[in-house]
Order: sequence, then C-alpha cells, then structure tokens
Amino acid sequence: MTATPAKPAKLLPPNPTIGVFDSGFGGLTVLRDLLPLIPGARYIYLGDTARLPYGSKSRETIARYAVSSAKFLHEQGAELLVIACNTATALAFDDIRRSLPIPVIGVVEPGAQAALSSSTPYSLLPTPCSHVLVLATTATVQSHAYTHALNTLNLEAYEKACPLLVPLVEEGWINHPVTDEVLNIYLTEALTAAPSTQTLLLGCTHYPLLEPAIRRTLAALNHPLTIIDSAQATAQAVALHLNQQPTTTNHRPQMTFYATDSIEKFERLGSAFLGQPVTGVRHVDLGG
Amino acid sequence: MTATPAKPAKLLPPNPTIGVFDSGFGGLTVLRDLLPLIPGARYIYLGDTARLPYGSKSRETIARYAVSSAKFLHEQGAELLVIACNTATALAFDDIRRSLPIPVIGVVEPGAQAALSSSTPYSLLPTPCSHVLVLATTATVQSHAYTHALNTLNLEAYEKACPLLVPLVEEGWINHPVTDEVLNIYLTEALTAAPSTQTLLLGCTHYPLLEPAIRRTLAALNHPLTIIDSAQATAQAVALHLNQQPTTTNHRPQMTFYATDSIEKFERLGSAFLGQPVTGVRHVDLGG
Repeated sequence: MTATPAKPAKLLPPNPTIGVFDSGFGGLTVLRDLLPLIPGARYIYLGDTARLPYGSKSRETIARYAVSSAKFLHEQGAELLVIACNTATALAFDDIRRSLPIPVIGVVEPGAQAALSSSTPYSLLPTPCSHVLVLATTATVQSHAYTHALNTLNLEAYEKACPLLVPLVEEGWINHPVTDEVLNIYLTEALTAAPSTQTLLLGCTHYPLLEPAIRRTLAALNHPLTIIDSAQATAQAVALHLNQQPTTTNHRPQMTFYATDSIEKFERLGSAFLGQPVTGVRHVDLGG
Repeated sequence: MTATPAKPAKLLPPNPTIGVFDSGFGGLTVLRDLLPLIPGARYIYLGDTARLPYGSKSRETIARYAVSSAKFLHEQGAELLVIACNTATALAFDDIRRSLPIPVIGVVEPGAQAALSSSTPYSLLPTPCSHVLVLATTATVQSHAYTHALNTLNLEAYEKACPLLVPLVEEGWINHPVTDEVLNIYLTEALTAAPSTQTLLLGCTHYPLLEPAIRRTLAALNHPLTIIDSAQATAQAVALHLNQQPTTTNHRPQMTFYATDSIEKFERLGSAFLGQPVTGVRHVDLGG
C-alpha cells in the first residue's frame, strides 16, 4: 500500500516543493520533523479542517476528501506529496498515487519500518513473531493497513481503535487525569488481548502529543514498551527519498499553510503541533 | 433567530412531509419525539455524516453545509423543515430560512421557551433573573444563540462548551465512569461560574442520551437542576405549528432516511438515538 513512489527522486530538484497534507493539525507533527531534516525545501501544508475528522468516516468518503486535498497541493506546485495522516494513508494511498504524477509518501510504511528496526536492534533479521501494538483511529484499524505492512515485515500486529484520543488532544487535556484513565482503559484492553507486545506504534499524528501520558500509563501498568512515532519515521523516509544528508544549516524553511475551515483556529491549535507559531494561514474551499 | 417561520401553517396539508436534518445521528432524538405527536406525517431524515461534526467548525462552513442539506430535503419533497441540530440552528437558521420557501423550525427557540415554562411553573410572568445553564458544542456556545433567545425571555444564560460529550456518546460510554468524571469537570466549572442556576438546558441533540449520567453527576454535586431537553420541546413546537392534537392512533409513520457517509454505520448507531431500528438508509453525496 505504501510501496515505491511513482516517480524516482532523481527527477526532483535538490530543494523541492513538498506538499504535506492531513485532515487537520496532526500532520504538523510530520512537518515539524521534516524541517530540520530538509531545511532547504519549500513546504505547502493543507489541513482539511472543514471535513475532519477522517478517522470515523467510510473509505469512500475518506478517499474522495484525500484525493481532492492531494490534487490541490499538486496544483499549488508540490513536487512531492507527504500524506501526513494515518487514516488517509491507510484508506486512500493507492487512490492518491493514481491521481497524481508526483512521488507520494505515506506514514504507514515508514511507521512499520521503524517498528521493525526497533524490534531487531542487534540483528539484521527480524525476530520471528515480534508483536507490535498499533493505536489508531477506527477507520485506520478497520482498513488493517498496519497489519498488512507489519506482516510483510514478519511482525505480528494488534490494532486498537482509540476514538477518544483525538478529541482529548483537541480539548487540550494532554496531561490530565481523564486522559490517563482513557489511556489506561484502551491500553489494558489491548495488552490483555496481546500480552506479548514489545513495541507500541502511534498510528495517528495526534498521538505524539500524548507520548508522556502513554509512558506514564504503561509504567503504571508495569508494561513498558518501545514507542514508535510514525511522524518521525515518515520525515526520515522523505529525507532518504531525497538523498538528503543531515545538515546543520540555519536556512529558514519557507512554509505556506492552507486550511479548509477557520484560519484563526488553525493558527491557534496548529502551533502546539508544529512547535512554533503558525501564521499567515490561507483559507481554501475544496467543496462540501 | 428562530422567529416565526416564513409560511403560515394553514398552507400545509394535515399530514405534511416533514424534513428533519442533523449533522449526524443526534437529530433522531427529535424525530423520536415527533413520531407520537404527528404520526400521520411522512418523514424524510438527513444525517450529514460525511461532514460531521458541525460543532467544532466555523460559522461559514456550518452555514454552507446546513443550507445544502436543507435544500436537499426540500428537493425531496419536504413541506416543513425541522433543523434538529443545535449547532446548525444556532449558526445557520437565518441562512436556511432565506434559502427555502417552506416553514423552518429550529431547536433553539423551543428549548428556550421550555426553559421559561420550567422557570415559571406557578406564574404567567417569568421570574426575574432566573438562570439557565446551557450545555452545548463549541460553535453553538460561540454563537451565543441561546443567550440571545433566553435573554429575550428575561432569563439569564450561562453557556458551557462540552466538546468531549459527543465523542463519549459515539464511543458508547453512556454510563461509564470516564463520562461521569468528564461531566463532573464540566458541571463543576459551570456551576462555580453560575451558582444560582436552577435549570439545565441540553443544547445538543446527543446529550439526551447522557441524561441519566447528568442527573447522577448533579446529585453527587448536591446541585439538582430541572433538565430541559430541546428535542422534546422542538417536537412539541412542530405539533403546535401544525395544530396537531395529541392522538392515540396506531398509524405507522412513513420514514425515509438519507446519510452522506456510511449507510451501515448510520443504521447501527442511529437505532440507539431513534429508539427503534433504522433500516433502508439511502446514501446521498452532497459534495465535499
């Protein structure tokens, strides 16, 4: 599902225009991780906030929304597209790739690859039957995209839908007893069903903001796990695709932001995800 | 905002086609209360599930979605429209009324009227400065539609945004310790800010499903309140508009359901809101 992009990287200029898209704000965690790795690129970010969330909707609706968002970024000049949304990658990667004549990179395969690396730190061969617990939205879990990607790498997957985590993050309850209790319920259920899990993959770009709470909950459950953030893994996959070397340049990346709903809300909430102020957001109407 | 509908009721047939619309499933609580009051009508219900939730989005986006939903129901033959969604009523009532040549009834004014009746049980005059606490979505609270409607009736309003309640209902955690804890937080904050509240208005059609949990929480806080459900008040306002008398007929109402996202999910979740099986749902694409 997240196989080789359609066009080889050598056709891209050294500092291409990279389109990054998500249903909302979560994809800004991928952009945040891209900035230090590829500082010379120009970035165009689209948050499809008028139609979020994708994670509770059907495959057909998600694919329609995702393809129109991807086409918009291509029209704005994107030479490479990053689907910085687990749900859109899981449900619409092939639709998006077929719709665009540029390379497309999603978050599922990099996340699975990072889980493999974490499972085999001392060996080039995967440990048979290593178990990975994937926390994700309902739509991502129902697609079983992570199960397919992990099984291909000889890893076992257990996927757990966590529909309350995105609303809790958006309520700002990042470090809050209610969030700890919800995480305790979700993780207890998951670890009871898959007790031999060693690795936890955060399969939604909102979840990295909950990493401290997740670590706290796992410690309370006496079940520490290696946590994989697919945002970081995806940024590294993009850098690898562009043959970018780590750099210490002070180049200030060019960023343009678009949102399909309120600009003010995007600027206010987006800053927490990007880790720096989000300003100059432009509104775009993609229908609906 | 929810003033006299555009056309007088006398132009309507005795058993009209009533369009009922909500962003999702919550409006089915209004339909549930309409069925016994106006059993001879034909009902067409639209859940705009591909674009939900409305409650976290901007006025412009909500108005665009609500007007296209309302027009669809009119095209299907609706002779009277019930906006069974607090957010759409609060943000887009005037836009919808201007767009349609049929009477339009929203949920805000009937809810406010019911709060007035509850505040003045032994008098025809409102008690000065009776306080009503309104729980609603972020968009509804930001519109201050309930404050305007209640102030017009000489009632004081305190509005509290409760963004986690809809996700909790949709997770199925109707009677759950996490929901009780979230309600405890929201209600404690609201009652600290507005301690003289006597009446609680449920300003979102999802919230009636939480009424037992809300009563439990209020009892634990030692602050019992009269609870007003705007779904029931709206159904009564529609019956009044049609000059319908209470009836004990066994007539089985005709109902047609449309959803803009998954039919299967609508049938599964909708039944809990309607209180009877929801079947034969048809899909409609309203863009987006």
